[in-house]
Amino acid sequence: MRCDVLAIGTELLLGQIIDTNSSWIGEQLAANGLDSLLQVKVGDNLERIEAVLRRMLIDADAVIICGGLGPTHDDLTREAVAAVMGATLVPNDEVAIVITQLFAARDRYMAPNNLRQALVPDGASIIAQTRGTAPGLICPVVVDGVDKVVYAVPGVPHEMKEMLERAVLPHLRERSGQAAVIVSRTLRTWGESESGLNERLDPVIDQLESVGNPTLAFLASGWEGMKVRLTAKAESEEAAAALLQPFELQIRAIVGGQVFGVDDDTMESVVLDLLRGRGWSLALAESVTGGLVAGRITAVPGASEVFRGGVVSYASDVKFRLLGVPEGPVVSEPAAAAMAEGVRRLLGSDVALALTGVAGPTEQDGMPVGTLCVGLALPDTTLTRTFRLPGQRDQMRQMSVITALDLLRRELQALPAS
Amino acid sequence: MRCDVLAIGTELLLGQIIDTNSSWIGEQLAANGLDSLLQVKVGDNLERIEAVLRRMLIDADAVIICGGLGPTHDDLTREAVAAVMGATLVPNDEVAIVITQLFAARDRYMAPNNLRQALVPDGASIIAQTRGTAPGLICPVVVDGVDKVVYAVPGVPHEMKEMLERAVLPHLRERSGQAAVIVSRTLRTWGESESGLNERLDPVIDQLESVGNPTLAFLASGWEGMKVRLTAKAESEEAAAALLQPFELQIRAIVGGQVFGVDDDTMESVVLDLLRGRGWSLALAESVTGGLVAGRITAVPGASEVFRGGVVSYASDVKFRLLGVPEGPVVSEPAAAAMAEGVRRLLGSDVALALTGVAGPTEQDGMPVGTLCVGLALPDTTLTRTFRLPGQRDQMRQMSVITALDLLRRELQALPAS
Repeated sequence: MRCDVLAIGTELLLGQIIDTNSSWIGEQLAANGLDSLLQVKVGDNLERIEAVLRRMLIDADAVIICGGLGPTHDDLTREAVAAVMGATLVPNDEVAIVITQLFAARDRYMAPNNLRQALVPDGASIIAQTRGTAPGLICPVVVDGVDKVVYAVPGVPHEMKEMLERAVLPHLRERSGQAAVIVSRTLRTWGESESGLNERLDPVIDQLESVGNPTLAFLASGWEGMKVRLTAKAESEEAAAALLQPFELQIRAIVGGQVFGVDDDTMESVVLDLLRGRGWSLALAESVTGGLVAGRITAVPGASEVFRGGVVSYASDVKFRLLGVPEGPVVSEPAAAAMAEGVRRLLGSDVALALTGVAGPTEQDGMPVGTLCVGLALPDTTLTRTFRLPGQRDQMRQMSVITALDLLRRELQALPAS
Repeated sequence: MRCDVLAIGTELLLGQIIDTNSSWIGEQLAANGLDSLLQVKVGDNLERIEAVLRRMLIDADAVIICGGLGPTHDDLTREAVAAVMGATLVPNDEVAIVITQLFAARDRYMAPNNLRQALVPDGASIIAQTRGTAPGLICPVVVDGVDKVVYAVPGVPHEMKEMLERAVLPHLRERSGQAAVIVSRTLRTWGESESGLNERLDPVIDQLESVGNPTLAFLASGWEGMKVRLTAKAESEEAAAALLQPFELQIRAIVGGQVFGVDDDTMESVVLDLLRGRGWSLALAESVTGGLVAGRITAVPGASEVFRGGVVSYASDVKFRLLGVPEGPVVSEPAAAAMAEGVRRLLGSDVALALTGVAGPTEQDGMPVGTLCVGLALPDTTLTRTFRLPGQRDQMRQMSVITALDLLRRELQALPAS
């Protein structure tokens, strides 16, 4: 079954926003055993949207449209789909009520044009909106006597992803009726480059290539880690899992130390679980990362059971006065150790992690851009490490976050079981 | 003149690589006054590449193809373009010599298939390769008696960009014979919904639609703010600016209070500039955002001149003990005020901003998910505000960041000039 993708928005054609939605959708379709052979960007122009959609429906069994569902004059997806369906747009009271309630709940005035989002092509069914104000649409169309379907979802990535997983992919899987399932197992690693992992895993890769199923892919994912993904196709979840398992074990046998989690694990969630398991609380002292570590930690629901808080000691004298760092170079292992012990004392936590370094644009304390010093205060010892990290300011700061958390992860896992 | 873009590569459809090339090309075309109305991704399949290229050439005057020029069996752009031209592929000796010399110069063995890159459709002219081994191609085609052109450039971004600037854009400008440039002006706003802005700007939008140039678009960009973008087409930068200016003034006259910056400004950079202008330093106390505000502030190079640091007071007793918040409900305006004054005292800053709220998943202190209380301690006054924000945990936290910084921005701008 073939499902192509149409991204709507003049800003996409002008390069003011990069279309990441269709790539993400393509990845999901592939993971569900569905082909996506054409992906198109078109601007906010009714005639062109309608024409390209008609054209795409000749070759594809289904088309997913992202964007153009908003309330404004340049949101034209509803009109285009209705035209292709040969249907009229009908106001939907339930949708209108939900939109009105959303605004009321936020104590916000609702401009009347928001009710444009309650217009539904006659014959389409609705994907209820749980995040934004625009619902998604499932629109049956007949092309040369063949039943096809158009899905319309918002262009806001988190709204699009939620609707795709909740409604569009299940609907597509059911239509495709294919027995084959595709199951992936992602090992999340940190501490080795793609080429380094690739080289060490060469024997496994050769085996995989000779059998052809499962397949292996490396996905460098910034501060989400370096992903090693195994993907198997089989008649059932169980059969796919049985194909994956021996290769996962082989990979772990070779690079197990670098594997910090699987699938949806994040470095933050793994570290929080390890601390929770020991009943230990965490505090942070951040300089170079300026709050990014705390921001990641607190993105995890339930972090409050473990995380007490942190100090962003950006100015040097805040390090000296508030954290008791001795006067001297602040990008150094002694400074990192003092920051960790200082914030542990100040916030009364069991464990404290501290980061100081040089994100650039210029060097500091004679240390080059990319230098990261990490201090880790554990209940009965404090240790420090220095790393050299790549990249521009933003990238170096993100690498610092996962590098420091990975040090904490490894130290916690190395401790004798409590 | 219309030039559409075709990106070649199965990995683009599978989401293994995000197609940033067509966005960049679209930006360049717009800056040169050329329309790009359709941008397409297709996989490494000869039949489909040829079919979609034929299709695109019906509407477009020119098509730029990125990728598929490499030496391997799945690099099929040359074959597809030759088929559409109705031409045969001819080995080009000069190209073959350059490729051979490139390998020799790098002391590398040249696999014979590299000479596939010396095949040129009969009648096409060559864009000499200066970086990679594959030359670009300029391929004249006749469609329904109309002279059109297909440009083929490599998919490697730096090779593609170099050839586009050196050969493709000049060739297109000459063909188009028009000097037109396109200039955009983006007003970044916060505090009103897209639909609310749209409604209040209705009279301006009507005018713009009646004249047709400039055009206006809204771009909801999360915690980057709600963008209102004017785009004008004219013979020169100056003429375009002259077209934009009266409409920018009209928009500012209506929604000026919401406009926090233009073009590449961010809320963080604007707030830091306002503080720098008064010689004031900033400290932060964050609970609900858990360090995200500090993380955004410190992403701005030079933030250290203004930003002293912050406290992430996640656990309630950290608020009480470290910041002197009175015992009681911590999601409240009194708590936000005490947090701001406490961190201002603790870090010795001129100004302090504090955020406490409920990101969910569950309510807290009887306050619903989405509640944000902001405290702002200025040199001689402290004020507080409560907001109701939409969205899931992550979105609510991001909205909190820009909402709190926008409050600081408005208060600083409202102060008498120093």
